Order: sequence, then C-alpha cells, then structure tokens
Amino acid sequence: MRILLVGFGFLGRELAKALRNKMSLLIRIDSDFRVVGAADSKGYIYSEDGLNIERLSGITKLSEHEDYKSGREAVELINRDLCDVIVEATPTNIKNGEPGLTHIRLALSRGIHVVTPNKGPLVLAFRELMSLAEKNNCDLLYEGAVAGAIPIFSLARECLQGDKIIRLSGILNGTTNYILSRMFFEEIGFEIALKEAQEKGIAERDPSYDVDGIDTACKIVILANALMGRDAKINDVERSGIRGITQEAMSLAKKSNYAIKLIGVVDKRLEVSPKLVPINHPLCVHGTLNAIHLETDLAGEITLVGYGAGKETVSAILNDLITVLRNRSGKSPKKS
Amino acid sequence: MRILLVGFGFLGRELAKALRNKMSLLIRIDSDFRVVGAADSKGYIYSEDGLNIERLSGITKLSEHEDYKSGREAVELINRDLCDVIVEATPTNIKNGEPGLTHIRLALSRGIHVVTPNKGPLVLAFRELMSLAEKNNCDLLYEGAVAGAIPIFSLARECLQGDKIIRLSGILNGTTNYILSRMFFEEIGFEIALKEAQEKGIAERDPSYDVDGIDTACKIVILANALMGRDAKINDVERSGIRGITQEAMSLAKKSNYAIKLIGVVDKRLEVSPKLVPINHPLCVHGTLNAIHLETDLAGEITLVGYGAGKETVSAILNDLITVLRNRSGKSPKKS
Repeated sequence: MRILLVGFGFLGRELAKALRNKMSLLIRIDSDFRVVGAADSKGYIYSEDGLNIERLSGITKLSEHEDYKSGREAVELINRDLCDVIVEATPTNIKNGEPGLTHIRLALSRGIHVVTPNKGPLVLAFRELMSLAEKNNCDLLYEGAVAGAIPIFSLARECLQGDKIIRLSGILNGTTNYILSRMFFEEIGFEIALKEAQEKGIAERDPSYDVDGIDTACKIVILANALMGRDAKINDVERSGIRGITQEAMSLAKKSNYAIKLIGVVDKRLEVSPKLVPINHPLCVHGTLNAIHLETDLAGEITLVGYGAGKETVSAILNDLITVLRNRSGKSPKKS
Repeated sequence: MRILLVGFGFLGRELAKALRNKMSLLIRIDSDFRVVGAADSKGYIYSEDGLNIERLSGITKLSEHEDYKSGREAVELINRDLCDVIVEATPTNIKNGEPGLTHIRLALSRGIHVVTPNKGPLVLAFRELMSLAEKNNCDLLYEGAVAGAIPIFSLARECLQGDKIIRLSGILNGTTNYILSRMFFEEIGFEIALKEAQEKGIAERDPSYDVDGIDTACKIVILANALMGRDAKINDVERSGIRGITQEAMSLAKKSNYAIKLIGVVDKRLEVSPKLVPINHPLCVHGTLNAIHLETDLAGEITLVGYGAGKETVSAILNDLITVLRNRSGKSPKKS
C-alpha cells in the first residue's frame, strides 16, 4: 500500500522514525508497503516508487528535502489517487477542523483509508466521517486522538467484543494532571503549579484549552461517539475546569486520602469537572499520565493507564496503520 | 459453528448465562452459531441441532438435564468431530494438565478450535500446543487463563501490533493481593489476614498454591511464552512467596509510601517475589484486583487493571470465542 503522511510536525517526524525502525515488520504484512509522500502546510515531497525512509526520518523540516515542492498541497495528491492510506497529523483545530477535515473527507470520499491522531475533525463530524468511511468501504482509525498511547479504541473493538461499555471515566489531559499532581504532592497553589508547567513546556502560554477542560471535553465527545454509540457534540458536555482548585481544597482532600483530579465522564450525561478520587483507586494516577476506567456488563471494571501525549502516541498510529494493512492483506504481524 | 462446553463448574455455568444473554450478537457474527454440547467429568448432553441455551443456563449441574448421558466423556464428542470449537474449562491441574491437556491436544489435532481459561495445559505444553494449532490451522485462544478479565493477550496481539514488549511485571494473584492489602490498610499480621481470606472464601484451606507464588509463577510462564517469545517452564521461574512478610515490614514500607506486593516479572529472568511498590505507581492496586505493567519500545509504559478471577473472566472467554467466529466469518460485532 502507498502511504501519504499529511502533516510533518512533531508526530509526523516521530512516525517517520518509527516507520524506518519497523519497516521489515510492515513489509512482512504488506510486501508493497511504501511511504510515497509527505506533506506539510507549505508543500510536499512525492515519489510513486516510495520515498527513502532513512532520508525522510533524518530531516526535521520537509523543505530540507531536495525533492520538496514548495507551494503545493496534500489535496492534490489525494485528489489524484496517488496514495491508498493517509496519516492525517496536521494540528488539531476544534473551531472548524481544518485543514484535517478537508483532507479526511476528501480521502474517504475517494476510497482512501485514513489514520489520524487529529481530534478536530472527529469532534466536529464523527458520524459524518464514519458514514463516509463505511459508504466507501474505507477504514477510518483514530487511536492516537484520545489518550495518546492508551489503545482504548482498539481495546474496545478487539478485546471486549462481547462486552457492553456502560460507563466511562478518565483522566484525559496530561497538562492538568501534572498541575494537580504538583499541587497534591508539593502542596503548592494552582498559579505556581501552572507557571512551573509552562516553564517545563507542559502547559501552553495560553493554558485555557487544557485547564478549562476544553481538551478533555473534546476527548469525551469522541469516546462517547466511538465507544457508546452516541451522537454527541462539544456543547453536550457540561464542563468546568481546574482554575478554582485551591491549595486548601487539595490539602483537605489529601488528609482524607483523596486527590482532586480533572475527570471526564461518559454516563447518561457527558461531563468534565474536578472530582475527588480515592488515592487507592486505579484511576488515581499522577504526573502527565492518563487513565481510563471502563465499566462493562461482563468484565466489570477495567482501567488502562499510559502516556496521553508525546512520541508514545506513535504506538497508536502505527497500530492503526497495521490494522489497515491487515484488513486488506489478512496477514497478522504476530503469531506466538 | 458448533460449540462444545467442556467443564461445567463455576466458569462453565457463568459462560452459559453469558451465551444466553449475548445470543443475538453471536448469531449476527455467525448465523450458524449453536452450543451443541456440554460435558462435565461424569457425562454430557449433546444435540446436533443445538441445546436450548435458556435451559442450559438455568441448571447448576449438567446431571439435572433430562438428556444427560452419564458415564460418557467429552473425548467421544471431540473424536467424532461433533463440534467446531471447544471451550475447555475443566479445573486447572499444573501437575500433568489433565484432563484439559488431553481435550486440547485431541481437539487441535482434529482441526477443532480451542478457547480455554485453563492454565495447566498452557504452563506444561505451550509451544507444543501452539505448534499443533498452527499445523492444523486452528485457533488456540486463552485470554481467561491469566489475569481473568484483563485482556492482556488480545491487547498485545491487536492493540500493540507495532510495539515490542521489553519487560512485563504484574500483580497476578487476587488472593495474595487481598491478604497484602489487608495487612497494608488494617496493619494486621499475615496469619490473621490469611485466616480472614479463608473465611471469606478468597483463600483455599491449603493456601500454598497462592501464597507461595506458584499460581503467579504459572501465569508468568504463560505470559513469557505468549507475549515475549520465550520457551519457559515453571522451573525457570525464581519464586518466593509472601509467608515471610511481617506486619512490621509492611508498616515500615507504608511509612515510606510503599506497599509490599507479590510481583511477577518477565525480564531477562523470570521471577516471582514480594517487592516494594510506590503507592503512587499504577501497578499498586489493592484488594483482589490484578494489574499488569508493560514496558514497550513505542508506547513506553502501559498498565492494565481489572479483576483476575470470578465471573468477570467470562468477558475474556467470550472475546476469544467471538475472535474464532470472526476469523472464520470475517464479520465484526462492532462498528461505530
């Protein structure tokens, strides 16, 4: 299969490195596996015979590449059916989903499979995109879009096939979990913990997307739609952030063996809010870790813990990509 | 497909109830799905057209059934190819694996798929049975054999397809975790906690299989073989149990924000021993919960927490059964 990487930021570059390292595995599943192109917002490189992955994984900007065509757009390559799968990893935009939404719509409408860690298009148009994928007999996989390296969607799809998920709750934002963990362990106030997170590059200069719970709300929308058959939009989520959590409130909680965590919940209602979590509960993880707690009819309670962002997300993207290859070739990478 | 249930103890009965509840899902994947037989150690019931699942799920002993044939053995049904899949749920026997080992060998050698939560045959003959399955183009799935409802094997197979698991550690025995949790929270000694667990039916009258780490060692062998390509036997595991953990040792650990847990490890060496675990580590779960911590090359660290035994194990057995049906029909139960 011919793969096109759309977006060459941090995740795109990390993915290129992982593809280089795992090439023999990928070729074993699909002997015709090749990365034919890579695009950023200002141009692309393309080769029908496949790019040199060693070269691609060694550059930090596509424009460094000798074959970079400036002023060109990924949509040209998609429109001309010059690929079989796109990995859409442009920046998340929850206002209008662009440019990811256009890329994904176009690809699916042309029968091109999509793997994406991009939340924007999924938050805005989940049902539309899933219908489009089904209509065109395409895979649309998005494991990396929620809780990074925690394989929540493939787990529900492949490992809990007989279970019905009744309720879901989770710590889905590493930035706020880092801030709240510092407040819990160091007994410092919100503003100081936030400033520290900003200095470490864990929080943005404008932190509202994280600390006001918007990012968590986006993830709750995707989880509700993907795992529990909802048709939720961002406005369906009752949301409050962590700015109001004081040092005193955290200390009081701690004295009673609780921590305050920003928890997203998919139940009858969709909600994001700070909640008391018993420190011995599996969901009570610290630092930048994420955790998802599922309640199902058969397995009872299952909790998954892992990194919610960073280069570990490549695990999720690669798993999706291999799923697309397997769905078409029937070959499995692992046999014990 | 024609399903034969072999073993009708606690798990067999719980599975019959789950099959009744999920019948419409199962029929959707395989329109010819039917439970044709159920066997215990003293006889069986069989009907080529399929047993009445409502009736089967309502009885506590097979011998209550009007069609029960006493003095007959499951091997007769397997030998005459009267089923396409067996669910082997006879009691675990780690001495010689019987009767499960005979059932599984016979089924696989005749091209009959096997789903089993039975550790014994897997501990004793993992490589032999996997080769037999491959040679005969059969599925041999055993999700329920380790950590009950935690879907560790399907997770590794389906959700971490591009990852290499480098190291694994886990709390894999609910009985010892219950005892150690009581010692940690109530500050009581081992003997008192053990007695309490025995009174609650959580520990056996002869607790050595659990408290001496034998059960955990069996699970470590299966995990090492299934997930990390080893060819380990039970004697390859360095093992020490929890009898030597004193109230004082646990109190000291607790004062430094650690708990003592019985941890199984698959690293270069295979080991089962009590270890200090920071109370804030995701692996530090309490009560009868199990937890598995994976270290992989891409995802970094992933922890799964869930019930290690009890009726929740039916989730794992059902997932395996659906995987067999899907592998043959190509149909998936869930589409978002």
